[in-house]
Amino acid sequence: MANIKCIGVLTSGGDAPGMNAAIRAVTRAAIYNNIEVKGIMRGYRGLIFDEIVPFKTNSVSNIIQQGGTILKTARCKEFMTAEGRQVAFEAMQREGIDALVVIGGDGSLTGARILAQEHNIPIVGLPGTIDNDLNGTDMTIGYDTALNTIMDAVDKIRDTASSHERLFFIEVMGRECGYLALNGALATGAEAAIIPERVFESDQLGELISNGFRKSKNSSLVLVTEGDITGGAMTMAERVKKEYPQYDVRVTILGHVQRGGSPTAADRILASRMGAAAIDALLDDQRNVMIGIQNDKIVYVPFSKAIKKNKPVNEDLINTLKVLSI
Amino acid sequence: MANIKCIGVLTSGGDAPGMNAAIRAVTRAAIYNNIEVKGIMRGYRGLIFDEIVPFKTNSVSNIIQQGGTILKTARCKEFMTAEGRQVAFEAMQREGIDALVVIGGDGSLTGARILAQEHNIPIVGLPGTIDNDLNGTDMTIGYDTALNTIMDAVDKIRDTASSHERLFFIEVMGRECGYLALNGALATGAEAAIIPERVFESDQLGELISNGFRKSKNSSLVLVTEGDITGGAMTMAERVKKEYPQYDVRVTILGHVQRGGSPTAADRILASRMGAAAIDALLDDQRNVMIGIQNDKIVYVPFSKAIKKNKPVNEDLINTLKVLSI
Amino acid sequence: MANIKCIGVLTSGGDAPGMNAAIRAVTRAAIYNNIEVKGIMRGYRGLIFDEIVPFKTNSVSNIIQQGGTILKTARCKEFMTAEGRQVAFEAMQREGIDALVVIGGDGSLTGARILAQEHNIPIVGLPGTIDNDLNGTDMTIGYDTALNTIMDAVDKIRDTASSHERLFFIEVMGRECGYLALNGALATGAEAAIIPERVFESDQLGELISNGFRKSKNSSLVLVTEGDITGGAMTMAERVKKEYPQYDVRVTILGHVQRGGSPTAADRILASRMGAAAIDALLDDQRNVMIGIQNDKIVYVPFSKAIKKNKPVNEDLINTLKVLSI
Amino acid sequence: MANIKCIGVLTSGGDAPGMNAAIRAVTRAAIYNNIEVKGIMRGYRGLIFDEIVPFKTNSVSNIIQQGGTILKTARCKEFMTAEGRQVAFEAMQREGIDALVVIGGDGSLTGARILAQEHNIPIVGLPGTIDNDLNGTDMTIGYDTALNTIMDAVDKIRDTASSHERLFFIEVMGRECGYLALNGALATGAEAAIIPERVFESDQLGELISNGFRKSKNSSLVLVTEGDITGGAMTMAERVKKEYPQYDVRVTILGHVQRGGSPTAADRILASRMGAAAIDALLDDQRNVMIGIQNDKIVYVPFSKAIKKNKPVNEDLINTLKVLSI
Repeated sequence: MANIKCIGVLTSGGDAPGMNAAIRAVTRAAIYNNIEVKGIMRGYRGLIFDEIVPFKTNSVSNIIQQGGTILKTARCKEFMTAEGRQVAFEAMQREGIDALVVIGGDGSLTGARILAQEHNIPIVGLPGTIDNDLNGTDMTIGYDTALNTIMDAVDKIRDTASSHERLFFIEVMGRECGYLALNGALATGAEAAIIPERVFESDQLGELISNGFRKSKNSSLVLVTEGDITGGAMTMAERVKKEYPQYDVRVTILGHVQRGGSPTAADRILASRMGAAAIDALLDDQRNVMIGIQNDKIVYVPFSKAIKKNKPVNEDLINTLKVLSI
Repeated sequence: MANIKCIGVLTSGGDAPGMNAAIRAVTRAAIYNNIEVKGIMRGYRGLIFDEIVPFKTNSVSNIIQQGGTILKTARCKEFMTAEGRQVAFEAMQREGIDALVVIGGDGSLTGARILAQEHNIPIVGLPGTIDNDLNGTDMTIGYDTALNTIMDAVDKIRDTASSHERLFFIEVMGRECGYLALNGALATGAEAAIIPERVFESDQLGELISNGFRKSKNSSLVLVTEGDITGGAMTMAERVKKEYPQYDVRVTILGHVQRGGSPTAADRILASRMGAAAIDALLDDQRNVMIGIQNDKIVYVPFSKAIKKNKPVNEDLINTLKVLSI
Repeated sequence: MANIKCIGVLTSGGDAPGMNAAIRAVTRAAIYNNIEVKGIMRGYRGLIFDEIVPFKTNSVSNIIQQGGTILKTARCKEFMTAEGRQVAFEAMQREGIDALVVIGGDGSLTGARILAQEHNIPIVGLPGTIDNDLNGTDMTIGYDTALNTIMDAVDKIRDTASSHERLFFIEVMGRECGYLALNGALATGAEAAIIPERVFESDQLGELISNGFRKSKNSSLVLVTEGDITGGAMTMAERVKKEYPQYDVRVTILGHVQRGGSPTAADRILASRMGAAAIDALLDDQRNVMIGIQNDKIVYVPFSKAIKKNKPVNEDLINTLKVLSI
Repeated sequence: MANIKCIGVLTSGGDAPGMNAAIRAVTRAAIYNNIEVKGIMRGYRGLIFDEIVPFKTNSVSNIIQQGGTILKTARCKEFMTAEGRQVAFEAMQREGIDALVVIGGDGSLTGARILAQEHNIPIVGLPGTIDNDLNGTDMTIGYDTALNTIMDAVDKIRDTASSHERLFFIEVMGRECGYLALNGALATGAEAAIIPERVFESDQLGELISNGFRKSKNSSLVLVTEGDITGGAMTMAERVKKEYPQYDVRVTILGHVQRGGSPTAADRILASRMGAAAIDALLDDQRNVMIGIQNDKIVYVPFSKAIKKNKPVNEDLINTLKVLSI
């Protein structure tokens, strides 16, 4: 067993619902195994600017249900430099932190990987991002909550959809990953999802319109992944206005609403299991791995593999969406 | 007692949560009093294009909890003309409809008023709009639900607010009425509301910034009423970027999400009471009145008074918001 | 103006959603007026056992949306005695607390009244109880949230109501007050509410059954106020089983679920206004009053009047429920 | 390809959120493949008493988000006899129904299996039950929603948990399966779950109490699976009152609330995929199979395997719960 007496835990990058459940699990599982815990505030920034607080069992009481992260999160440009990471490493030594648990997305795990390489520190990552865009894990912490938030919003929009041939474009998060848009469309009975993975294959909007959307006279709802690849909902709306002026087009951009909210049961359970597994991994001499879940089992995924961007889209879902939107 | 044997009920204009509860109450209260009910689809349009369906007790079963309106709603330009209204009147005669109950906002009630004047028909209105901008009633059907929807969204945005000096502008509905923005800000602990009623009195944004927002280093949330008077959230953001480039500004436009959702208890109860009161009013020989609620009591408000635009803003709320955002 | 330099704030009795919003408003309005604030833990118990903490502006940050009370609440038998209250008074003197703001129901306000009488202390009360059973105020803090919680639960039960002639009795809180049951029934389209105020007038269950419930073959939902006066849902179920064995009866007892949850917009706004008003009242030399709201205006209600138990039931609501459940 | 021109679809047994999404998917996928659809009301009862309605694409519009089942469900004792099933079979022949899709739990699938054996009919089942107690599928339709409903209720109960050493027993559904209790405890940070799978191994309540629950002085929440095996929450409470009178015990029985509510995204997506897969299976000449999901892939599970009761409990979850409740 590794000789780890004290760990630091931090959240980094965009926050995601369930991060608090993960912090709670990491903290309690460590203490259960007689390991001391220090909470590092505002991501890597807290290491560099020395915002580090001791964590006890009750530091994480009554947070499992809270959105956001009690450790806060921040981008930190100092950590982008080798000098900054040296400062961070020295802070860890000064505080007696033997290992780190980093909760965040691919940027955060990339940072973890570099820090671990430069200073030979045991680091374990947890996938905390609503985008579900990490490899090696079926689910990331926050994805299920964001999906349900999107669903609730789209349900409300459909309530108000009147008898006009109205076309709603609803922009959702996901960056280069169409998971949220595709699953959000399936969950809400939307007509279609326009996703980055398909942009270079086909003119998704053109096909949709030339198929006449749903054949009924009801409103049509289309979910669009944000970002430059698809162009986002505004770009869609402008194109429709120009090419198909007969449609009455509306746009909703859900924005930061998708990052917040009390986590769902699935996210809390996932975060709890992964948080406990992070401590097991450290006790098991693992390092430079992200905790993943595959087929409902905990797995260790090397950082190098987790952050490679090639997560394939599930063709089965695309096909089901098409069949059900007749 | 008026000799009313059959009424028509319709919803018109922008929809609002609780309209279904109102339709249910109108229908059941009429049948309870041995009055026949006909549902008119798509607002005044259904009168002109003859989309009228007989309604029984169970036509309105299991709808009290649904957002939107089962009668649909539409704008109808034909109804803007005297000829169109003549066609509508003839449809009522043909269908044996002796009186109308119209559920909608000020545009819908204005239409009702003109129709009643031209053709001497008993019409009673119900205030159905999320904007709460009608006179003579403390509350309109849909306002409480929209307010809670806004609150839930802002709660989620605050979850993700990190430690930066970030400034979120969140645009909410309300047209010329700052009710939703002001009460939404109070309910969420936001720093401020920028509302149309104050635009000509003071530079709300300028004062906010020169006061340094909240004194803490946390994010600041500001709710802004949509529309030309305030300029909306985008305009605010652009001005801040130009004049105060040190702030990191984000914009969320909640949009049509605010019109949907299962109505709150307050909206369902209000709609139920007002729907039953509409039938009481007709039985009591009332016409050309909107049902209002004042001090928890049902009142009859002449259409002419209800649609006058001078609803004052509650100064007490503005002051409370200021005191609590220190 | 009263010479008040420091106030104490406490929550007492059963907790209610919105208590945190009230604590926040009391604290911030006090500080805004240059009054120091001390938070007293676990109700009157904190005075006697000296659990008193200084409160700053950020002691109440990010709590407006939280259920429960950060000050905790407890019953305190020591406070029932004159000796106990003497100890409490001495703690206030020692801590330099010049006045108290007490948030709670009738038991808590009765305690406040006695303490004020014995020791000549300025005390202002806020009505914090889900039961809405205090006089002199249209609404109490927590009532609207509890009503919506009940509504959500009954909506779910109705989803599962199948085609049998099934009879659901759903027991809700309210003690001697039928407000929650009556308004809950209206909001959910339930068939009836069995409430304490009517027990001595009529056999509510007997009438319901002899009228054959709703005439349809669907399930019937009946809300019942807890407690000895009505007998509660279990007693109803047993009576039906004995006298009308043809009915398939089910019971749900919602229990403590009704006290929790993030407060609704209405409760947060009410709590914020009342909390700010409590400080205004103290600055205005008021004492021995509960802050109430009447016709959307803040009023001062003498404790003696607030805790008198004779709040009448709204006959209009009972009649509307009857009309709409045909 | 099987020569199927018309299918019947029915829901049977206890209802579950997501059944409507499944009905929608079955209907649309069938029509997409040029198969006619007939909706059979009230489960097998509709076959015997001839309540069968033709279903079109828009028969299932706007239902994906609704709890319950538009086809209703009922127990049917006539279907328990060979004579009853003969009547059902004749109804299918008369209506021209070539194959059945049955959505329900193990009782419903057992009925499907017998009907298929006796009359050589192609039948495909979908696992619709909140209990998640079927073999051969990782998830059943309705489980995720019920779990989130339980979580929301327990979150509210925790809000009101005060400083006493109070012990809440919260009874949840699940019949002979502890899934909901165990995962509900994990998701809410409860102290423990008392589940049927462990009853014969150990005295779960005794161990819990002798360990002193959580070491803090806060309330303890324990989830208990309903039913004779564990004895349910009331039995727990009585035992504690007798053996450990120092504890202040409270009981909440969530009851039918758990079966209702708008389905979560996960349940809607699962139901949509499974519904489409049911038609694929029939087109692929499959019969006597339940559609399952394993490792996010659709699988066909023979009825005989699906309804065998030996689903093991996940030891990893039990251990994680123990570690995190220190």
